Amino acid sequence: MKLLEERIKKEGKVFEGDVLKVDRFLNHQIDVNLLSELGAEWKRLYEGTEINKILTIEASGIGIACVAALQFNVPVVFAKKTKTVNIAADVYTSKVESYTHKTTYDIIVSKEFLGSGDKVLIIDDFLANGKALEGLIQLCEDAGATVAGIGIAVEKAHQPGGERIRSLGYRVESLARVKSMSVEGGVEFCD
Amino acid sequence: MKLLEERIKKEGKVFEGDVLKVDRFLNHQIDVNLLSELGAEWKRLYEGTEINKILTIEASGIGIACVAALQFNVPVVFAKKTKTVNIAADVYTSKVESYTHKTTYDIIVSKEFLGSGDKVLIIDDFLANGKALEGLIQLCEDAGATVAGIGIAVEKAHQPGGERIRSLGYRVESLARVKSMSVEGGVEFCD
Repeated sequence: MKLLEERIKKEGKVFEGDVLKVDRFLNHQIDVNLLSELGAEWKRLYEGTEINKILTIEASGIGIACVAALQFNVPVVFAKKTKTVNIAADVYTSKVESYTHKTTYDIIVSKEFLGSGDKVLIIDDFLANGKALEGLIQLCEDAGATVAGIGIAVEKAHQPGGERIRSLGYRVESLARVKSMSVEGGVEFCD
Repeated sequence: MKLLEERIKKEGKVFEGDVLKVDRFLNHQIDVNLLSELGAEWKRLYEGTEINKILTIEASGIGIACVAALQFNVPVVFAKKTKTVNIAADVYTSKVESYTHKTTYDIIVSKEFLGSGDKVLIIDDFLANGKALEGLIQLCEDAGATVAGIGIAVEKAHQPGGERIRSLGYRVESLARVKSMSVEGGVEFCD
């Protein structure tokens, strides 16, 4: 998606350690009009696919998922990263290794909001090593829900997550696919 | 706002310990069409007030803020609860006591995204003891930004936060104000 690629070229910043910061428009400050365009693009790509729910993960997936959900006219469910006193014990849970935080954490979703009738579009801001996405897929499998598709804003295609998850048979629609990036040369996208 | 009050009456659940769960439509599963209605109501209430940015806090504020921001046509900035390796050191920070989690945590916002020219609408899902909101106000003050207003979905008006923050001179527009609640009697709203 040219619009997102151009925005990353213009306002994204590459740091050592394979870090791509898009916090000017995507995951700290958020350009909600851009999110509308991302949502419209996923809606176009998944035209004809039955979707009744969007699943994402806190925190930076939530805004993207909610604005996209307006286009799909379906509810959002977001997986939570820690168990709070406000959530019932009756949850699906999955473990995720975080590349960013160098830790492992649990993600949970209430059994009340994910079930065997659901046709789920999973949405997230980034796909790199794919661990968070695998955790979300696991939650759907545990719930007996169908993963109808996956929508990613920025895929680091030079990392293994996207290929591994596609090889499992899931449809992954990434709107910007980074082929390579460096502090000196900036970001190059896949064709 | 009748729409939100009726939804809370219908689908909210009260638990011991002054816990009101609205996770069926507001902060775990999210009815994005309801969020659009909340956004439209804040837009109506703040008509004529200059607002160029919406500030919220992860995680459950983000969806509400992003959908509201579509109506205001302004960007969202969300304060983060922990410092990640992806964020620059150049941040404003404030401490918040969490009623839900029984802990104290830091919230941060990049200095790049909050500054002296900003007229900020602060949005969050809940206002109870007001600690998170005070933290967000503190970030604005530290940045030299103006708090143009505050938009809350559900205020627990029987707790002291709302009164304390209004008494400081801030305009707080809560779309549902809980007067009292109990496991047996359910929720009563202020007139």
